[in-house]
Amino acid sequence: MHTPNESAALLDGIRVFIEPAHVRSDPDSCLNYGRDWTRLYTPNPLAVVLPGTVEQVQQLVRYANEHRLALVPSGGRTGLSGAAVACRGELVVSLERMSRILDFDPTDRSVTCQAGVVTEAVQNFARDHGLYYPVDFASRGSSQIGGNIATNAGGIKVIRYGLTRDWVTGLKVVTGCGDLLDLNRGLIKNASGYDLRHLFIGSEGTLGIIVEATLKLTRPLREPSVMVLGVPDLDSVMSLYHILRNKLELSAFEFFSERALRHVLKKGLHRPFDTETPYYVLVEFENPEQLHTDTALALFEHCAEQGWLADGVISQSESQVKELWRLREDISESIAEYQPYKNDVSVRISRVPDFLAEADTLLTQEYPDFEVLWYGHIGDGNLHINILKPVGMNPTAFAQKCGAVSEHLFAILQRHGGSISAEHGVGLTKKPYLHYTRDETEVNYLRAIKQVFDPNRIMNPGKIFD
Amino acid sequence: MHTPNESAALLDGIRVFIEPAHVRSDPDSCLNYGRDWTRLYTPNPLAVVLPGTVEQVQQLVRYANEHRLALVPSGGRTGLSGAAVACRGELVVSLERMSRILDFDPTDRSVTCQAGVVTEAVQNFARDHGLYYPVDFASRGSSQIGGNIATNAGGIKVIRYGLTRDWVTGLKVVTGCGDLLDLNRGLIKNASGYDLRHLFIGSEGTLGIIVEATLKLTRPLREPSVMVLGVPDLDSVMSLYHILRNKLELSAFEFFSERALRHVLKKGLHRPFDTETPYYVLVEFENPEQLHTDTALALFEHCAEQGWLADGVISQSESQVKELWRLREDISESIAEYQPYKNDVSVRISRVPDFLAEADTLLTQEYPDFEVLWYGHIGDGNLHINILKPVGMNPTAFAQKCGAVSEHLFAILQRHGGSISAEHGVGLTKKPYLHYTRDETEVNYLRAIKQVFDPNRIMNPGKIFD
Repeated sequence: MHTPNESAALLDGIRVFIEPAHVRSDPDSCLNYGRDWTRLYTPNPLAVVLPGTVEQVQQLVRYANEHRLALVPSGGRTGLSGAAVACRGELVVSLERMSRILDFDPTDRSVTCQAGVVTEAVQNFARDHGLYYPVDFASRGSSQIGGNIATNAGGIKVIRYGLTRDWVTGLKVVTGCGDLLDLNRGLIKNASGYDLRHLFIGSEGTLGIIVEATLKLTRPLREPSVMVLGVPDLDSVMSLYHILRNKLELSAFEFFSERALRHVLKKGLHRPFDTETPYYVLVEFENPEQLHTDTALALFEHCAEQGWLADGVISQSESQVKELWRLREDISESIAEYQPYKNDVSVRISRVPDFLAEADTLLTQEYPDFEVLWYGHIGDGNLHINILKPVGMNPTAFAQKCGAVSEHLFAILQRHGGSISAEHGVGLTKKPYLHYTRDETEVNYLRAIKQVFDPNRIMNPGKIFD
Repeated sequence: MHTPNESAALLDGIRVFIEPAHVRSDPDSCLNYGRDWTRLYTPNPLAVVLPGTVEQVQQLVRYANEHRLALVPSGGRTGLSGAAVACRGELVVSLERMSRILDFDPTDRSVTCQAGVVTEAVQNFARDHGLYYPVDFASRGSSQIGGNIATNAGGIKVIRYGLTRDWVTGLKVVTGCGDLLDLNRGLIKNASGYDLRHLFIGSEGTLGIIVEATLKLTRPLREPSVMVLGVPDLDSVMSLYHILRNKLELSAFEFFSERALRHVLKKGLHRPFDTETPYYVLVEFENPEQLHTDTALALFEHCAEQGWLADGVISQSESQVKELWRLREDISESIAEYQPYKNDVSVRISRVPDFLAEADTLLTQEYPDFEVLWYGHIGDGNLHINILKPVGMNPTAFAQKCGAVSEHLFAILQRHGGSISAEHGVGLTKKPYLHYTRDETEVNYLRAIKQVFDPNRIMNPGKIFD
């Protein structure tokens, strides 16, 4: 930490190459830019800097090296692992002023943009050009492309379209040394040595700052239909997964529990059908000119006869597609007031039933008084486990109790070869548990790679690993 | 290099932990295992070692570190850049004995295999289980999965299915330090720090040895149809690309010149139709129950009216699909006797016409006496330029003349932001030209990463960069 005088001098030094108005140390800015969607840490940045050009980012990184100043790269701060939190006097580097779309080519079907572009802006841009950017999730309206790349964001269409990683064909980054790398430049094929692009994807700001990206686009989904199915048990969820993905061109296979559903219903949504079941599955598939509706209905009949589902509904219009999606997508926001302790884990799909059963037993036993909600992306082996804080309970005590149970949960996960973070990243919240997924030898290689790109440890220090 | 006595002692040391029969130094083994499909280098390995287990690979790497012995990992040796060549007294490490399929799960749709499994064996295994491994290319019958991963092999289905990189969900590697890393274990989502898997994909054996891989599989193509179209000029090729990919579900969009076609015709294949055109395009698309044949024919009519094609043929049966594919796939083998100098370059698809025009002018001017053949994967921006050696010309003189012209070619490529190697890798043949695609700053990062995984520089030294 610096004395007030030292801090002022450091910021004055930055104001030499970045417009003074964009070097902010007022309490409001520090509060807002110093945190993400986790609320476990007290924001305490030195200041917030908003560079407007790649050159300014480079100057800032060089300056930070000179003065051993820790930098926290900042996107839309919708993260759930604390990777964008600045609570130790760091300088927050917000890319929000760098939010232009720079280039588009219809032949390449690719768009180049600055890192601060909001996800939804890319999606809309693609749509306006008859194309589609398929990486999608509930925070699309505020998350930024740079942040998506830094966490390798997943979301609701992974089963068909993969992760953010699969859509990045070019990346401009400023490394922790201040070097500007122009990686892969939008090429489809490029076998010219190690692909550094993939190191920066998912690096959570610990290797450098992503300043520009080239993203692939694809043709839009053809008139997607959505079914929501009421399912009696987990085995039936898996049976549905098997049969539906073989017969339909699935773009989503999502899952949520009756308990989770009740929270969105409280917010004014309606039950998809009268029957209550312990679990629900949301399935999306391409259905141009209702071509596959008969197939879907026949499958529905068949699955009902097998006892794999108790009720269901299929969308009849575009607006119904959106309504049905809200049943799944609004869950996270509907429980935000309970300050849930979030686990975002993954296993191989084949391991989901066993893992879920063991985890359910553990959580029922350890949390008799807490409400536990399950939902997630079954088709990716990705489960979100949300533990709701009882009203009035002290947040720190709640987090501690949940953290202790996490050790047991992750031990189960480790036996199933799973990951402690499927798509939220490690940041601060999952750092203590990293060893359940990456062994010490691997983590030492991660450390050595950080050393290559950030020898002075100025880039988001203390995130992912120490 | 070692004295004969030293060499014998070194090999005896290896025979302590690897069965003596699998440590070979006879001239035949040294010749066969010391080279790949390039024929520019004189094989000169110390010996060939064929480990049978992961433990033996680890022991070997540790032994090599102790004795500062250079190792050349060896797959099917179908490479075209010399990455698997051992011409400086290295020890070749062939994985061919490690060729078992270890695990398969129909729910995960994934297969785990040893690195020495031949590509076609994985394809067949998938097919036998009602699934599909879509990475495919002419050397499928001898290339191995470990080698495919080490070069991030591409091939003929990239336009729809991407590269090898997109199908690897798990990797076991022995690093240059002798550590065994079990990377990603088949997970779809895993946001737990830098993804080392992607560093090893495309590393050409310079960071360690790939010993096992978990590969995703997918559903098979539904009754693919193939069209071969005769095209008058390059602009028409691009027009066809635009319209066909928007209307059909393309799984290939390949390109070859009349000159290239003539070589496969000499090998006994028949012209696809009577009309001769300067260029040909091969298009493959899913066509279940001939559902899209009418669409394809209407497109054909439309394109003919526009003057984008002069003639064409569409497959009527599975055997015709295979026959038509041979027109494109057999080119490389049909010209092997001319010991062609191969360039395998890529640009963004939108840059293909300009790059091709400039390159054509250069090559016509520089090689008035050489036959130059073009073919490649236009849908990926990937062009293969083959310069045939005139009969009787000295191979070294020929390579030197071609290499000199490559400098000019790559300067053009650099202006278009392209890559000196699309899918063949860098190895030895492209090493002198790496700087046209990766700048000095980037290459220094590559060197530093190698240092992390292989501090004693025993892993395939001298490949990719010095």
